[in-house]
Formats: sequence, structure tokens, C-alpha cells
Amino acid sequence: MFLHFHYADRLHAAIRAKGTPALVGLDPRFEQLPAEMRERSAQRTTNRWECMALASEEFCRRIIDVVAPLVPAVKPQAAFFEECGPPGMAALGNVIHYARRQGLIVIADGKRGDIGSTALGYARAWLAGADPEAAPWGADALTINPYLGVDTLQPFLELAEERGAGVYVLVRTSNPGARDFQDRATHGQTLYERVAQTVEHLASESLGASGYGCVGAVVGATYPAELQKLRHEMESVPLLIPGYGSQGGTSADVAGGVDPEGLGALVNSSRGIIFAWEREEYRERFPPDRWEEAVLAATQAMIADLAEHTPAGQLRI
Amino acid sequence: MFLHFHYADRLHAAIRAKGTPALVGLDPRFEQLPAEMRERSAQRTTNRWECMALASEEFCRRIIDVVAPLVPAVKPQAAFFEECGPPGMAALGNVIHYARRQGLIVIADGKRGDIGSTALGYARAWLAGADPEAAPWGADALTINPYLGVDTLQPFLELAEERGAGVYVLVRTSNPGARDFQDRATHGQTLYERVAQTVEHLASESLGASGYGCVGAVVGATYPAELQKLRHEMESVPLLIPGYGSQGGTSADVAGGVDPEGLGALVNSSRGIIFAWEREEYRERFPPDRWEEAVLAATQAMIADLAEHTPAGQLRI
Repeated sequence: MFLHFHYADRLHAAIRAKGTPALVGLDPRFEQLPAEMRERSAQRTTNRWECMALASEEFCRRIIDVVAPLVPAVKPQAAFFEECGPPGMAALGNVIHYARRQGLIVIADGKRGDIGSTALGYARAWLAGADPEAAPWGADALTINPYLGVDTLQPFLELAEERGAGVYVLVRTSNPGARDFQDRATHGQTLYERVAQTVEHLASESLGASGYGCVGAVVGATYPAELQKLRHEMESVPLLIPGYGSQGGTSADVAGGVDPEGLGALVNSSRGIIFAWEREEYRERFPPDRWEEAVLAATQAMIADLAEHTPAGQLRI
Repeated sequence: MFLHFHYADRLHAAIRAKGTPALVGLDPRFEQLPAEMRERSAQRTTNRWECMALASEEFCRRIIDVVAPLVPAVKPQAAFFEECGPPGMAALGNVIHYARRQGLIVIADGKRGDIGSTALGYARAWLAGADPEAAPWGADALTINPYLGVDTLQPFLELAEERGAGVYVLVRTSNPGARDFQDRATHGQTLYERVAQTVEHLASESLGASGYGCVGAVVGATYPAELQKLRHEMESVPLLIPGYGSQGGTSADVAGGVDPEGLGALVNSSRGIIFAWEREEYRERFPPDRWEEAVLAATQAMIADLAEHTPAGQLRI
């Protein structure tokens, strides 16, 4: 028996246990991996994709070893594993299962989406929920794309409820071009506000004990005014907030996305943490062979920053 | 040296060579695969995902053997391979490479999309273009989702141009819920019309000798009036038209999507062809062990139907 089954309840238990909403994005861009790791994997195989996959998996496992005691969740980015071909996708499965064994919540960032019965295929692939063995990739949650319409979100939602899994619907992304289509207004309501309204409706029908649903939303830190407004309009919706750190979002920018108890949101940093040793502030303190210490320092700094400048500080009291 | 390099030129050469715009969708829903195939793969492995992957790969290879002499292209649906976990993704790679060796154009239906540098990861994974070995999954083209904005389409487009590959941007999907977000109007222009305008602009800047660009659009057959209008508004854009057959679209519905020479579009049928032996009209003629003959008959019937009721008939003159 699980103490918690519902995704939002499991998520909030993890956030409380670690005392932070910091989420570490696992984006193993091959070109940026530590040189010795790339060289070692090149000695183990002559297959180009397998070489990339081996290095990516080792890198992510070592990141997980550093951050698992500190943060509630990690977010592997499917694209960088797909880029390594079939061995990359096997590596992604290994990384997700490894992270879960370390007690982490795992959000697969795949931004999947398709019509009805096909959407169910994606849901079955990714949404393991409370039991990591229930789906081949074993994730707790998956990011999904709403462009195809509400009927295409439903299969994800149904399987998520059944398995104690979660989905995060793209509402307002963190890139400059997010405005192109997401900001188009119809009768005074933008597309992203309309999607947000839909997501709030779906979440309110799937509430767990924590008062949040198993349907979340991706809302970028790079648009703080919108984030604060959306936090109020989607009171049942756990947020996934990308854009902190390398993309320019600050703790002040994400503060409005966190509820007064410090819950209801995860704040993601990818490059700023996993490639911390390349950042000016860490480069002198940590030479390349001590890159894990830079990852640790950057994670601790992010946690402290969120505790000081957002309601996440409440979690530490 | 390639006779043709640009995606639209390669596509149109294939359409002319086969004399039809019929596209066969490879959706290996495990539960629907021939029973003997599922049983045989269950004898080869005790791993559930591997069993599904083995059967899916065999099924798709045998479909390809039947349809390769008749149609220009196939469209494997990534979701049903992902559902089989890592062995499924390896099977998908094998199926794509097998199809290309049979001279088929392969459109990977993955509906991928993400912000800038991450989108490039997906592009590198899928877009092999003219040289099947240039990307691990080896596809000629990939379907992509525009929700994140124009800047997120750019990395796909750049790699596509470089490699003679194509992308198909979701414009108007074939599902009932397509209306939810895609039909929202701003200053009298719907979201899908706005996306179509963007796609036409991108395609017009990447024209091949055939007069079409390497950026295509997905427009469902289930909305024939919109399809006809979009054909005129996107004169540089090769269309991928899903929804024919099982989803209710007829040859009359798709006619407006094909240009007067019978070019500029692919019309997709998935279930109606690959699971033809379950259809009433073929069930009596072909018992389960002769399912490939049903696939052949259904493919021939679709080709004849398109030739009779759409400008695709011009290709046969």
C-alpha cells in the first residue's frame, strides 16, 4: 500500500520532505558533457549513437546522485535522449528508473500529444504513476501539448487518475516566440488563458487530498505577471515553471507561482545546475574534474534563493 | 549524387512514380495485430514490451512488403512504438530503415515540438532527409506541433533544408476537438489560419524545383471546406491529409487538398488499410491468415478511389 497515491499528494509529500520546490532538468546535451566522460564512452563503442547514449546516462546518474538528497523531483528532457537514437531511449528509461529508486519524482519532458487512441499510446508509454513498473518509461508525470484540443488531453488524464500519475499541459512557455500563437486574444481572452481555464477545470475534477489535481500546467518564469495571474486563475493546478536561471527568470519572477504555503509549484533549472561548472561564478572554484561539486553548489544556491525570495521559505519553518 | 535532394522534389518524384498520393499510416496497435503474430512473439521473449515490439516490427515490415510497390510513402506513428518501451523505439528505427530500403518516403508521425535548442535535439533525432544514415531514426520528414511559437519551428526547418528533409506542421487536425483551440478567431482570423499563414511563409522561402517548400502542413480530411480553402492559401505547402477512411473522410472530401496536377498532397489512411481484414467488406473474402491480401485489396481500392474522385487521376494519364 502506498502512503500517498494521487500524483499531487505524492508531489507535495516530496516537496515538504525536501523543503523546496526546486526541480532539476536533465538535459544531457552531448557536446557539453564533461570531456573525460565523452572520451570514456567513445572507448566503449564505435557506434556514434550508443556512445552519446552511454555518456548521457552516466552523466544523468551522477547528477541524480548529487541532487537526490536535496530536491523533490527531476525532469529529463526526452529530446536529448531521442537525439541518441534507440540506445538513447533505453538510457532515458534507465535514468528515470534510477531516479525513482533514489526517491525522486520524475517528470518526463516529452511535450507529447495526438488524437484520441494515439494519445492513449503515449500515455501508456510514459505514465507509470505510483508504480514505476506500470509503464515502460516509468515516469510519474509527462508534459503534454494542448494544440490538438481538449479531447486529446482526456486519454492522458484518465490513465493518470488510474495510476496516480500526473500530466503538465503547456499553457505559457518560456521562449520569446511563446507570444506568437499563445497570446492571440479572442473576445479579450488569450489562447493561453483559454487553455489555462480548461486545465483548471480538468484539475478541479481530479483533486487529491492536497487540494491540487493531477493535471498541471507549464507556465514560464520569463513572463512573471502572467505567471502570478495564472496562479490565481488555476488554483487547483500544480505548476511546472521553466525559465529560472539560464533563461533569465529570477526567484522574484517565480515567487507569484508558488502558493502561500510554498506548495503548488515546481521551479525548474536545467543548464544552470547540470552545467554549473561552466558558469563564471563556479569555474574558478571548481576545475572540470570537480564538476559534481559545482552541481551541488548551484543546487544549494537555487534552493536558498527560492527559500529567501518566494513562499517556499515557509517549507523550512 | 542524388537525382533529387529537396524533400518536396523527392516526394513528388515518388508520387509521380507510383501515380498516387496515397499514404499508408503504420499504427501497430498491439491488441489488433494478427493473433498468430502476437503468439509467436510471446514465445520469443518473456519481456512484455519486447514482445509487443517484436510483433509490431514484424507487422509493419509485412505491411511495407505489400504496399511498397503501390504507394509513395508510409507514416509510422511514434506513439504505438513508444508504448512498447525502448525495444519499441528500436523497432521503429528498424521499420523506418526497412521502408526506406524499399524506396518509400517515410514521414515519422511524432508531433514533436519544444523550445529552440531542444527542438534541435528532436530535429537531429528524426530528420535524416536524403541520407537515411544522417539521423538515428532515419526519417524523410517529421510532424511537428506549432503551439510553442514560430521560433520553435526554425531549428527543424534549418536542419530540414540542410539535409533534404521535410517537416509537417499541425495546422488543422482531424479530431472532433480540433475546433477547441484551433478555431479561435482573432480579428476574424482563426488560430489555424494564422498558423497556415506562417507555414506558407516558411515554405515559400524553402522552395524546391517542384514549386513546393520543405515545410508542409497537416490538415484533416474531416473538415473539407477548410481543407480546400487552406490548399489555396498555402500554395507552396505540401499537405499531409489524415482522416480519410476510418475517421470518415471520403475522396470527395480530400479532393480540394490536391493540386490540379495531382500533386502537393499525401492522403493518409491507417486503420482502414493495415487492419483491413477486420472491415466488413473484406472479412468474408479474406480469413485472418490471408490478412495481407486484405491490406493489398484495401490499398488498391484507396488508390482507385483517389484516382477517380480527386485530381490524383491526372497522375495516371
